[in-house]
Amino acid sequence: MTEASPLGIIAGAGSFPLALARAATAQGRPVFGLLLKGIAGRELEAYPHAWVGIGRFGAMVGHARKAGCRDLVLIGSLVRPYLWTTIPDLGALKALPELIRLYRGGDDHLLRGIAAIFERQGFRLLAAQDVAPELLMPSGPLGGRSPGDDDWADIAVACRAIAALGPYDVGQGMVIGQRRIVAVEGAEGTDGMLERCAAMLEGGRLRWPRGNGILVKAPKPGQDRRVDLPAIGPATVEKAAAAGLRGVAVVAGSTLVVDMQEVIRTADRLGLFVVGVEGQAAA
Amino acid sequence: MTEASPLGIIAGAGSFPLALARAATAQGRPVFGLLLKGIAGRELEAYPHAWVGIGRFGAMVGHARKAGCRDLVLIGSLVRPYLWTTIPDLGALKALPELIRLYRGGDDHLLRGIAAIFERQGFRLLAAQDVAPELLMPSGPLGGRSPGDDDWADIAVACRAIAALGPYDVGQGMVIGQRRIVAVEGAEGTDGMLERCAAMLEGGRLRWPRGNGILVKAPKPGQDRRVDLPAIGPATVEKAAAAGLRGVAVVAGSTLVVDMQEVIRTADRLGLFVVGVEGQAAA
Repeated sequence: MTEASPLGIIAGAGSFPLALARAATAQGRPVFGLLLKGIAGRELEAYPHAWVGIGRFGAMVGHARKAGCRDLVLIGSLVRPYLWTTIPDLGALKALPELIRLYRGGDDHLLRGIAAIFERQGFRLLAAQDVAPELLMPSGPLGGRSPGDDDWADIAVACRAIAALGPYDVGQGMVIGQRRIVAVEGAEGTDGMLERCAAMLEGGRLRWPRGNGILVKAPKPGQDRRVDLPAIGPATVEKAAAAGLRGVAVVAGSTLVVDMQEVIRTADRLGLFVVGVEGQAAA
Repeated sequence: MTEASPLGIIAGAGSFPLALARAATAQGRPVFGLLLKGIAGRELEAYPHAWVGIGRFGAMVGHARKAGCRDLVLIGSLVRPYLWTTIPDLGALKALPELIRLYRGGDDHLLRGIAAIFERQGFRLLAAQDVAPELLMPSGPLGGRSPGDDDWADIAVACRAIAALGPYDVGQGMVIGQRRIVAVEGAEGTDGMLERCAAMLEGGRLRWPRGNGILVKAPKPGQDRRVDLPAIGPATVEKAAAAGLRGVAVVAGSTLVVDMQEVIRTADRLGLFVVGVEGQAAA
């Protein structure tokens, strides 16, 4: 009866939680939202839900059990919490030594550890893309534009550089142009990196004309695909355009896309390519 | 008579050109400044000099020959020029196809190529540290503070990550804390990266208390040590303090330090460590 049990959506910020809830509902599957206080948007209040604090594992488990959930999905963006400022409950306190250890290992370890904690409570942690494969980036271009030979060479260089940083839990996104990587994504996130490129272009620090440069995002090798795939949406394309870039390249089948139709419209309106790169080409 | 010929200093921005001119003069060696228009400071006008445009290799070669220079040093920071906005002279035009090829390969290729162009004109391109070894970072701490065990572990992780990015001509500097790399240096430069960390700390995106995090800088493997060593100065320590960091770690013998006494005073005043890491420990 796993399939008929409500899908528990532990919802962070952004548009993905709602997109997932809609996709599940369209499949006839009921949904129960575990909405992270101060982080999730209110759109999921349209579904059965409970608001929970980010450190309160015990409460999440309790709500999920009461709602009859067997399967959970962790989705949406989380600004990494400063552990000591969250108010942990009993369930979290039991896991605290493990959480502290995980916390020091970077985002990837943290998320994988949270998954393991839920699994030990008897839940199955699913990937959003397993529930709603239509959220995954397809191979090839979205919209009317495609990368040229020169762009493909840049994309390959950036994908190799992202892979080289794989063991370090940083640098899932880069901006490259004319074979030169000009920005590497850290804790500022993709949006922050694109805003920096826009400022560098404006200030003359990036001395290339508008219409150069590509945003490349790829998952880290060994990343837990259930909880931490790279993601893009219409806002990503808009910020890339503001940074003067010519396109966006992400790994097909390993990137979540929110509102694909709007991504296509935005890309075509602003004259950027948005392309899904085959994993082999990216590796 | 090479030693008695004036040392030609092709001067970019910042304090290093003057520090080098002073060091050479103190050794009894005359100096001739080739000051890059719009980039170099006016302090070197106290020495025999000529102002030259950045693309004007022919003019540089002419001035240097006329002044009797045999040895040249390229020193000071350069914002990477957008090639087409510089006004090349005949000397540069002859080298243009080579420059374009180099330009596409990243900073490291560009600088190495410029060195080769001067060498073909009969000059010897020296490293600043060969002329003035006192500009090099020594091993161990400058000032009163030293890294703890936890800091050393962070420094080692960042050094490995910098080495992993070595082939990609990016990421010579990183900020790390609690084993997590939070910022990677791109075209924005070290100062830009530190300003970003200060903003992330301020905005709550970096959720660690002040006094966490370390700036780590290391040369890229294969970097031409004559033209592109990492550099720090008092301003680096000030910006690291403003970002809430606890220290600065650079590779001993492979990092230029402008005004070492002032770096020590600034570090002690602001309570940061500044440490020279042995190459082996860094590798």
